[in-house]
Amino acid sequence: MKVSANFIPTLREVPADAVIVSHRLMFRAGMIRKLANGLFAYLPLGLRSFRKVENIIREEMNAIGSLEIKPTVVVPGEIWKESGRWDTMGEGLLRVKNRLGADFVVSPTAEEAFTSLVRDELSSYRQLPLSLYQINTKYRDEIRPRYGVMRGREFVMKDAYSYHTDDESLDETYQKMGRAYRRIFKRCGLTVIPVKADSGAMGGSGSEEFMVESEVGDNTLLLCKECDYAANVEKAGCKPDFTAPASIEEAKAAAASVPPVEKIDTPQVKTIEELCVFLKTDAKKFIKTLIYKAVNVELDLSGKDGAAPAPGCSKLERKSPSPGAPAVYPIAFFAVAIRGDLDVNEVKLAALLKAGEVTLAADTDVERFTGAPVGFAGPVGLNSIPVIADETVTALSDAVTGALVKDLHYQHAAYGRDFTPWLIADVRTVKAGDRCPVCGGELYEKKGNELGHIFKLGSKYTASMNVSYLDEDGKSRTPTMGCYGIGLDRTLASVIEEHHDDTGIIWPLTIAPYHVIIVPIKYEGAVKTAADDLAAALEKSGVEVLLDDRNERPGVKFNDADLLGIPYRVVVGDKNLSLPQPAVEVKRRSEKENRLVDLSNAAEELAGLVRGELGEMNS
Amino acid sequence: MKVSANFIPTLREVPADAVIVSHRLMFRAGMIRKLANGLFAYLPLGLRSFRKVENIIREEMNAIGSLEIKPTVVVPGEIWKESGRWDTMGEGLLRVKNRLGADFVVSPTAEEAFTSLVRDELSSYRQLPLSLYQINTKYRDEIRPRYGVMRGREFVMKDAYSYHTDDESLDETYQKMGRAYRRIFKRCGLTVIPVKADSGAMGGSGSEEFMVESEVGDNTLLLCKECDYAANVEKAGCKPDFTAPASIEEAKAAAASVPPVEKIDTPQVKTIEELCVFLKTDAKKFIKTLIYKAVNVELDLSGKDGAAPAPGCSKLERKSPSPGAPAVYPIAFFAVAIRGDLDVNEVKLAALLKAGEVTLAADTDVERFTGAPVGFAGPVGLNSIPVIADETVTALSDAVTGALVKDLHYQHAAYGRDFTPWLIADVRTVKAGDRCPVCGGELYEKKGNELGHIFKLGSKYTASMNVSYLDEDGKSRTPTMGCYGIGLDRTLASVIEEHHDDTGIIWPLTIAPYHVIIVPIKYEGAVKTAADDLAAALEKSGVEVLLDDRNERPGVKFNDADLLGIPYRVVVGDKNLSLPQPAVEVKRRSEKENRLVDLSNAAEELAGLVRGELGEMNS
Repeated sequence: MKVSANFIPTLREVPADAVIVSHRLMFRAGMIRKLANGLFAYLPLGLRSFRKVENIIREEMNAIGSLEIKPTVVVPGEIWKESGRWDTMGEGLLRVKNRLGADFVVSPTAEEAFTSLVRDELSSYRQLPLSLYQINTKYRDEIRPRYGVMRGREFVMKDAYSYHTDDESLDETYQKMGRAYRRIFKRCGLTVIPVKADSGAMGGSGSEEFMVESEVGDNTLLLCKECDYAANVEKAGCKPDFTAPASIEEAKAAAASVPPVEKIDTPQVKTIEELCVFLKTDAKKFIKTLIYKAVNVELDLSGKDGAAPAPGCSKLERKSPSPGAPAVYPIAFFAVAIRGDLDVNEVKLAALLKAGEVTLAADTDVERFTGAPVGFAGPVGLNSIPVIADETVTALSDAVTGALVKDLHYQHAAYGRDFTPWLIADVRTVKAGDRCPVCGGELYEKKGNELGHIFKLGSKYTASMNVSYLDEDGKSRTPTMGCYGIGLDRTLASVIEEHHDDTGIIWPLTIAPYHVIIVPIKYEGAVKTAADDLAAALEKSGVEVLLDDRNERPGVKFNDADLLGIPYRVVVGDKNLSLPQPAVEVKRRSEKENRLVDLSNAAEELAGLVRGELGEMNS
Repeated sequence: MKVSANFIPTLREVPADAVIVSHRLMFRAGMIRKLANGLFAYLPLGLRSFRKVENIIREEMNAIGSLEIKPTVVVPGEIWKESGRWDTMGEGLLRVKNRLGADFVVSPTAEEAFTSLVRDELSSYRQLPLSLYQINTKYRDEIRPRYGVMRGREFVMKDAYSYHTDDESLDETYQKMGRAYRRIFKRCGLTVIPVKADSGAMGGSGSEEFMVESEVGDNTLLLCKECDYAANVEKAGCKPDFTAPASIEEAKAAAASVPPVEKIDTPQVKTIEELCVFLKTDAKKFIKTLIYKAVNVELDLSGKDGAAPAPGCSKLERKSPSPGAPAVYPIAFFAVAIRGDLDVNEVKLAALLKAGEVTLAADTDVERFTGAPVGFAGPVGLNSIPVIADETVTALSDAVTGALVKDLHYQHAAYGRDFTPWLIADVRTVKAGDRCPVCGGELYEKKGNELGHIFKLGSKYTASMNVSYLDEDGKSRTPTMGCYGIGLDRTLASVIEEHHDDTGIIWPLTIAPYHVIIVPIKYEGAVKTAADDLAAALEKSGVEVLLDDRNERPGVKFNDADLLGIPYRVVVGDKNLSLPQPAVEVKRRSEKENRLVDLSNAAEELAGLVRGELGEMNS
């Protein structure tokens, strides 16, 4: 392909809003152009690389027996109402009414569409497991789209969904997907960090995120300096830095020598820091208590789940937000007690409560439930709402905490003796410096972007959407389900984030728009003939060639070649063609030095290099 | 690929709304499923054939130097406002407001998106011509989607757009596209009828539609029995069956011997048929006059276009519906006079007026302009609105026509003597039995569906969207433009419409989801081994194989093989394997008879047949 016959509008300048490298380079190399905020068009060069990512994903999905289908991008709102996500997805879901007043959704993911298709076709256990995928356009109405295609509104996602008779079968497909994902990213030349992730709004348990490091990443990761532990802060655990009592009796025994709980005046002292100064002690000796408002709580608070009935919740009404969706408490309040030096992890808390969202309660709600202004909440004597204690609280037998009265705190408060929480759980936010839960090594933080995600969804969608099959005994059962996504646009952008230098992109051969760029010093006479012949010979061997036939100065062409990042550059010039043994200059984009290769041998040698490297990366 | 590892839910029954063969067979063969009215999901088998159509189109586009890009599916409403189509597209355009209140469009075509991209990049004539295309999702909010993917709401279209410095360059690309389209349809095994078509709402002149015959087609075509003339009725011409005078003087001379025009009483006689009986004469002697209401008329009525000022139009206001859009008369009325045996072609009339739409005027408007109830309009003395006469009227020098008074007609009315129309044009609807405009042969009618369309758009979009480049002399100029579309879904469905029998699809090899289906009589023992080995050998040669490994009766498997329409069926059974020379039974789907082929030779022979036929179809 000749540059003059292509459409590669390279640029020296970058738009002001292009703050990350991949956005800048994709723009400068003429790979993308902006149609509107968060809407990007791929130009020919960008689309070639995009398709290579797409094909790698397709090959790996097919290799593990997932079957490609193509539902529509615009789907009926009805199925989103069935799953309940019409109500829970918020404004990121682009909803459309058509001319007849029917509701539609421009798909952000496709659990509903796939599950609706499978529902209509599934009758027998013999049809399971079934693994289907699509590579298709998605839309999420991001408020602040940015970083180019890394966080656009419209994007392409590979999304797979699998259906199973049991957890074992789900796990088998889940593991296969995990291995396929590792191969996909390896073939793209990407270093990914697989992390255990919270499954967020998707529901279910068992999930893994595939992250790439990025200074503008929207995830905080905790990694171990000693082992390969990696987790999203939203779900990270750590090795306890306390010794929890084995039972409530042991806790009581530990508190035996502690003086009885007693009130102390703490006038105008509200924050933990102020208390530390005032009482001349350490935040680790405090029980911090926060009041949370939780929305759409699925956890049963009536005591049927085995736990005790949740205090103050007997009058809460539990109902389904839409037909078929699980019953929830639309709004409930909780007190969360945690050691004073730590923070509550709201994602862990929401997962514990199976809640749509948790947020700190308003001051008026805090006063309503604790009887005191903000700053004096504590677990001792708090009966108006359920108290959830972080595990760290169980190790405290002589603590300071709020006394539910303005300007008063308790000292000598002991877990098990002075208060018994409704629930004990890990709701702590893990930080750099905490200890790895696996090996005890020190944890450190990185920012990361999620490229892919695999989930065990369980029966969330199959139950709410009434999917069933007959098992071997002819009994009707609900299949279990997994879902597996990869964002193509951000995968491509991430390849550039990882592979570039100051002058441009340095493509891995598997994703490069072309394998070889031929740069004739001046495209005429013997140089033109040699360049044309070399291009033809390479193309005949299956090598993808870009031939810079423009009438530009060599410097301009070399700069563009560096910017475009084609892995092999071949310079054809009079001087080297006039050698006794006519030669061309070959340079890898990733290396500084070039070398002369005999013209007569150049096509064969380059084709061999390209084939070998592709074979290795794809192996 | 084994059937058991695939997802091919074949059916005996068809849904009640599947009235055409392709819809029925795509449904029964498990190629598609319905998500909602007009929204279809392609299942694995359907998607494979779909991709083959896609690849053929891509190859042919690339071969003529068109460059693939990928704009978004959801595009900003702004650019549709710039082109003016935000106002003129009506309710078929799916409009969305996002969370921030911005307008978006789910693309039905992409003149705006491409032109907006080109506008930003175009600076010099050296960049032209430029031909770009996409193969991407489109949405049109059809009121009554039907016939499966033949007329769905969401579909995939290949749409190309080209930009040029002059008409010659545009014509060159237009001709290349036409040739590419012919190759595409040939490679798909489709018989298309290329017809001269009206360019409808797209504007511009010079266009060709690629039609396939279909009993449910939404186009009426006129074809010549003698030559290859073919035209859409909306634009078809015919050889005149009258002799028009060369000038108005000649018309006056012809009328010299005709008695003066005179009123005749025609009590309660309104229709042409009634008049024929009443006056004992022939409809060809009448001048039928109809009053039309036209919306958004771009044609200048003030007389500046060279024509006389249009009667009754001096007070009409001409304005742009949106900034940048051409000025139009929002509403204007016209009288159209035509020979009594003929019908007015409203598409020709709209094209003549450059109007968004023309419809018969309401009765009250007819009375307002003619001074008489419906049924007594005529060109003699009609001055309140412009009169447009069909060419046929100029040959009438002794005609009957309405006298603009209830129950009165004129007889002996002569063109040129008794009335002079404002415009004379061809606005006649051509019918079966009319004569071919090229060779004079008899024309006949067919119903057809449009698969593709190529257009010379001119500067409609480039002017309204302010695209410019500097020519060789450094002057700013507006490029001219062409657009070229093919609907993938209907192309695929049309292949089935053309290639099927009572038992199922008969795929052309190029579009078949698999080339060969292997049907083991019972998938076990030696049969299993032979079937597996044959499948492996064929796949190694690049042949696409479906192996029906299901534990079903042979009859069920044969029926499904016929339904799926795989071009070659190979039956592997004990009996033929036990022959002295072990053999398998090979049958072409398109033929009745099967034949025995030596097992040892089967893979090679089949691979040769497949390669040969693919080569021929793709040549």
